[in-house]
Amino acid sequence: MALIVQKYGGTSVANPERIRNVARRVARYKAMGHQIVVVVSAMSGETNKLIALAKEVMAEPDPRELDVMISTGEQVTIGMTALALMELGIKAKSYTGTQVKILTDDSHTKARILDIDEYNLKQDLNDGYVCVVAGFQGVDEFGNITTLGRGGSDTTGVALAAALKADECQIYTDVDGVYTTDPRVVPEARRLDKITFEEMLELASQGSKVLQIRSVEFAGKYKVKLRVLSSFEDEGDGTLITFEEDSKENDMEDPIISGIAFNRDEAKIIVLGVPDKPGIAYQILGPIADANIDVDMIIQNTGADGTTDFTFTVHKNEMGKALAVLREKVQGHINAREISGDDKIAKVSVVGIGMRSHVGIASQMFRTLAEEGINIQMISTSEIKIAVVIDEKYMELAVRVLHKAFELEEA
Amino acid sequence: MALIVQKYGGTSVANPERIRNVARRVARYKAMGHQIVVVVSAMSGETNKLIALAKEVMAEPDPRELDVMISTGEQVTIGMTALALMELGIKAKSYTGTQVKILTDDSHTKARILDIDEYNLKQDLNDGYVCVVAGFQGVDEFGNITTLGRGGSDTTGVALAAALKADECQIYTDVDGVYTTDPRVVPEARRLDKITFEEMLELASQGSKVLQIRSVEFAGKYKVKLRVLSSFEDEGDGTLITFEEDSKENDMEDPIISGIAFNRDEAKIIVLGVPDKPGIAYQILGPIADANIDVDMIIQNTGADGTTDFTFTVHKNEMGKALAVLREKVQGHINAREISGDDKIAKVSVVGIGMRSHVGIASQMFRTLAEEGINIQMISTSEIKIAVVIDEKYMELAVRVLHKAFELEEA
Repeated sequence: MALIVQKYGGTSVANPERIRNVARRVARYKAMGHQIVVVVSAMSGETNKLIALAKEVMAEPDPRELDVMISTGEQVTIGMTALALMELGIKAKSYTGTQVKILTDDSHTKARILDIDEYNLKQDLNDGYVCVVAGFQGVDEFGNITTLGRGGSDTTGVALAAALKADECQIYTDVDGVYTTDPRVVPEARRLDKITFEEMLELASQGSKVLQIRSVEFAGKYKVKLRVLSSFEDEGDGTLITFEEDSKENDMEDPIISGIAFNRDEAKIIVLGVPDKPGIAYQILGPIADANIDVDMIIQNTGADGTTDFTFTVHKNEMGKALAVLREKVQGHINAREISGDDKIAKVSVVGIGMRSHVGIASQMFRTLAEEGINIQMISTSEIKIAVVIDEKYMELAVRVLHKAFELEEA
Repeated sequence: MALIVQKYGGTSVANPERIRNVARRVARYKAMGHQIVVVVSAMSGETNKLIALAKEVMAEPDPRELDVMISTGEQVTIGMTALALMELGIKAKSYTGTQVKILTDDSHTKARILDIDEYNLKQDLNDGYVCVVAGFQGVDEFGNITTLGRGGSDTTGVALAAALKADECQIYTDVDGVYTTDPRVVPEARRLDKITFEEMLELASQGSKVLQIRSVEFAGKYKVKLRVLSSFEDEGDGTLITFEEDSKENDMEDPIISGIAFNRDEAKIIVLGVPDKPGIAYQILGPIADANIDVDMIIQNTGADGTTDFTFTVHKNEMGKALAVLREKVQGHINAREISGDDKIAKVSVVGIGMRSHVGIASQMFRTLAEEGINIQMISTSEIKIAVVIDEKYMELAVRVLHKAFELEEA
C-alpha cells in the first residue's frame, strides 16, 4: 500500500465526462489498496472566464478580490470530482485550500506556500476516504483566500506530497511524459523514461511547459518522487523525475544531453553606452526589481572606450513597463547613450546533466547554429545548460538542427 | 449616520452591468455618510447551472459536495461587487460565509444559522470599508461549507442586520415592494407602503414570492426593520415591514385585509376510511416527517361510521414520495380504505391583521367564491389569514374576485 498524490490539470477535468474518467482512474488505484489524494485544477477555460468577468467591473482588478473569484474555479472541480467518485461507490471528500489550511504568504495572485496542515487529510485517508484538494489556492494567516499563480496546481500537488510524505506525486497532463523537445516542432522527439530534477528544472525554466518550475523546485527540495503521465492514456509509466544519486549506476550510457527547451516569451532590453563603473548593474536593475519585473538573462560587455553595453531579458508583456522605468528613472542618472527593446527574439537551450563531464557541448551547439547561418545574440550558461537568444524566426530551425546534432531521436 | 444592510438578489446582480448599478447605488448611500453591508446572491441562473453540473457526475448529488459547488456562485458575485465598488473609488472588501463565520448547523443545502461573528465586519466598517458578504452560505463547526437553501440570501441579510444591530435591512429585488396581490394576475393590485410582520409572514408562507419566509421570521424575532425595494428604480421607498405596535396609532383607518396570496406549488394527499382512534394523525404524519417531507395544511373530518378522512398538503415535487411512504409504511397498519393524491390544486389566502377585530371576513370570502361557482376543497385559518384549497384552474379567477370584493385596489 502506498500513499499517492495525483494531480490533474485543467484539460484532464475539462468537462463532466473527463472528470468521470479521472474518477475511474482513481478508483483503479484505490482498488490496488493505495491511499489517494487527488489535486485538481479548474476546468480548462474557467480561470480565464473569471478573470474576464473581473476585468468587466474593474480594469485592473484588485488582487485580493481577484483571488476570491478565481479560486471558485477549483472549488467547483473538487466538488464534481468528489461526486464522481461517490457515484462509483468510493468514499470521497473535497477540501478547499482554506479547509486543508494550505497556509501561504499574502502575495495575492502569486502567493507562496508556507505550511500545510496535514492532520485532517491523514485522518480522512486512514478512514478510507479519497481526499480531493483544490489546487492553485491557499489561505493567508488572516483567512484571506490566496492563489499561487499560473500552474500553481502542480505546486499544490508536490507540496501536499511533501507534507504527507507521499510515496509518489503523479502529475497527469495532456502529454504522456517529458520529451527531448516539443514533438510539435520536432516529430522525432523522444519521450524520456526518466530525467533528473536538475535537468527538469532547467527544462521547465527554459520554457518546457510540462511542469511548473516552482513545483519542480519544491519536489527537489523535499525529495518528492515526481512522475509525469498522460490522463488520456491508461497505459505507460510516463517520465519519472529522479534524484541524480538514485540513477548514478545507470548513468554511464545515458546521453549527455537530455533535451532542448525553447520559448518566445521574452524580450531583450539593451542599454547602450553606460559608463563602466562599479554599481552600474545595480543602478539599472534595482528600479526594474522595484517595479516587480522579473529579469531572466543578464549580459554585460565592456568596450574599449570606457563605456559598457548592458543587456537583459524580461517577459514580453513587461517590455513596455521596463523601458518606461529605465527612461524615467535610470537613463538620466547613468548617462546611458541609448535604451531600446526587442521582442522579436527566442531563447533556445540545450540541457543535460552529462554536460558536467563532457567538454565541447557549447562549441558543438555554436557550430551547429553557425552552419545554418543563425546569429547568436546572447549566451548564458549554467552547469547543465547552455542557452542562446536568437532571432525568433529561426527558433524552430534551431531546435530541429540541435535535436539532430545531439542525436536525441535515438534512445 | 446609519448602519444599513442591503441585500441584492440574483436578478439585481445578473451581469457586470447590473453589478455596476448596485455599486453606484451603494456609493450614493455611502456618500450620505452611512455604513453599508452589502449581501449578494449568485448571478441569476448560476446556481441552477452548478446544480446541473453536479447532477452530470452524480444523479443525486451528495449534499456536502453540492454545497461546496453551489457556494461558488455567491463567491464570484462578492468579488465582482467589491471590484465594482473599488472602481468607483470606494474601499470595499468581500467576505465568504466562512470568512465572516456565519456559523450554521450541518444540514447541508438547508442549513440554519446558529451564530454570526460580527467582529471583523465591525472593524472594517469602522475603517470605512463597505463589506460585501456572500448570501445563502455559512460554515459548520468543522469548517464544512453549508448553504441555507433557496432564498437563503434574504436570511443572510436579515441575520447580519440583527447581529450588527443595523438600523435597517433593505431587500432589493425585481419588484418595487409588496403588493396586495401579484400584479400579473390582478392589474389593479396596489403597492403597500407598509405591512406588519405577521401579515408579511402569512403572505410569504402563502406563496408571495417577494421575501423568503425564514428571513421574515428572523426579522420578526430580532426586531429588524425590513424594507423591500426595487433595484431597477432609483425612486420610491418600497414597502416597510413594521411591528404592529409601531403602527398602532395609524391603524384605525387601515384596511382590514392587506393582501391576497396564492400558490400552485402544493398537492393534496387524501387518506380515506381511517378508523377514528387516538393516535391516527401521528401514525400517518410520523412516517411523512421521518421522510423529511414538509406538510402544510392538515384537515381531519370524522364521519358517522366510526371512520375518518384525513387530508393534508405537501409540495408538488414530494407528492410521489409521500404516497409511496404512506402505501408502504402506513396503509396496512391503519387499515386505510384508500390513499390518493391530487396535484391539480391551488391555495388562495386572504391575509390581514384587521381580521382580528372584524367578523365576517370568512363568510364574505366563501360567498364571493360561491358566487363564481368555485368549490372549496379545504379550509385552514389563522388569526390573520384564511386559506382555501380550490381546483387550480380557478386560481386566477378567485384571486381577482377576492381582490375586488375586499376593495384592495383602493388606497
